[in-house]
Amino acid sequence: MKYPSNIKKSYTSTINYKNRGMDLEALITDACKYYLDHDLAVIYKKPTPIGVVSVDYAHNAMITKAFFKEPSTLDYNGIYKGKYIEFDAKECHNKTSFPLTNIHDHQISHLTKIINHGGICFLIISMNNNYYLFKGEDLLEFLNNNSRKSIPFEYFETKGYKLDYNYNIGLDYLKGIDNAYKELILNEN
Amino acid sequence: MKYPSNIKKSYTSTINYKNRGMDLEALITDACKYYLDHDLAVIYKKPTPIGVVSVDYAHNAMITKAFFKEPSTLDYNGIYKGKYIEFDAKECHNKTSFPLTNIHDHQISHLTKIINHGGICFLIISMNNNYYLFKGEDLLEFLNNNSRKSIPFEYFETKGYKLDYNYNIGLDYLKGIDNAYKELILNEN
Repeated sequence: MKYPSNIKKSYTSTINYKNRGMDLEALITDACKYYLDHDLAVIYKKPTPIGVVSVDYAHNAMITKAFFKEPSTLDYNGIYKGKYIEFDAKECHNKTSFPLTNIHDHQISHLTKIINHGGICFLIISMNNNYYLFKGEDLLEFLNNNSRKSIPFEYFETKGYKLDYNYNIGLDYLKGIDNAYKELILNEN
Repeated sequence: MKYPSNIKKSYTSTINYKNRGMDLEALITDACKYYLDHDLAVIYKKPTPIGVVSVDYAHNAMITKAFFKEPSTLDYNGIYKGKYIEFDAKECHNKTSFPLTNIHDHQISHLTKIINHGGICFLIISMNNNYYLFKGEDLLEFLNNNSRKSIPFEYFETKGYKLDYNYNIGLDYLKGIDNAYKELILNEN
């Protein structure tokens, strides 16, 4: 296509990592809403922690200065079949391994505590066009037995539980929980 | 005391309702920290939901315009003895009754869902210098059997579980949970 020389062309990148990050989140948000509407589970994304510096009370309590804070827990939590559920969603753009810098130390310590208290805690990892439920227990086992700085893709293929995308539901992670935590879930019901 | 006429006297009000509200929250925050440090429970206050309108990425991703949003769930949630816990803290300055306008409809619908899914859901109410754990089940019973717009203080005295303030812990609400949900907690352990 030929543009007149006086009109500035605007380019839109087709690779948008930010939006790719949103996609996994959007698929999980859809599922949470479906589960809530169909009374299957009550699971929400926690609000992003924000440190408010100044508020203009004269203008409807408008926040005029604030900063994003690092979360010390995982992003989603709630209840399913009487069980406490907590998880985080991680997009991995690397095709061969998942860099452990994606998980903060305080998140690992939090995940350990939740498991010790009898909760169900995991990651949802998107990698090579697949979605995996990766149990917190398996993450801890990997960390305790490896000095590697990343988890190889094969590890998810072996240890992870593949999640299905469903047009009506979104990313059907409850099915994944049923699969990954069979004994825990069966004992309860 | 006599002030020179050219110096403006500044008054500080001794009645500060905002800070009174903070007190209950501070007592609960202390308890959450104590329980976490002593590995008794993992319960956090959810971040306040904020709608971000504009961000200045040139200045360290500083938020320059945002608004507080109404929470649709309760403020605190987590896990205790394998059970999903969720609650809200409400300061009541009225001495004779607790106005139901303090609890939003979507909070009641959320609380109902949590109970139906097997979670422990309650309010912590501060009233007449006492702190009460008021079970979600008792709140729903009151709402279903009354057309009143407020809950009389006597109702909390009869149905509520008085919480102790402990110098080391803060407001010891786990003891209240043990008391109020004896059967549920005993079955688990």
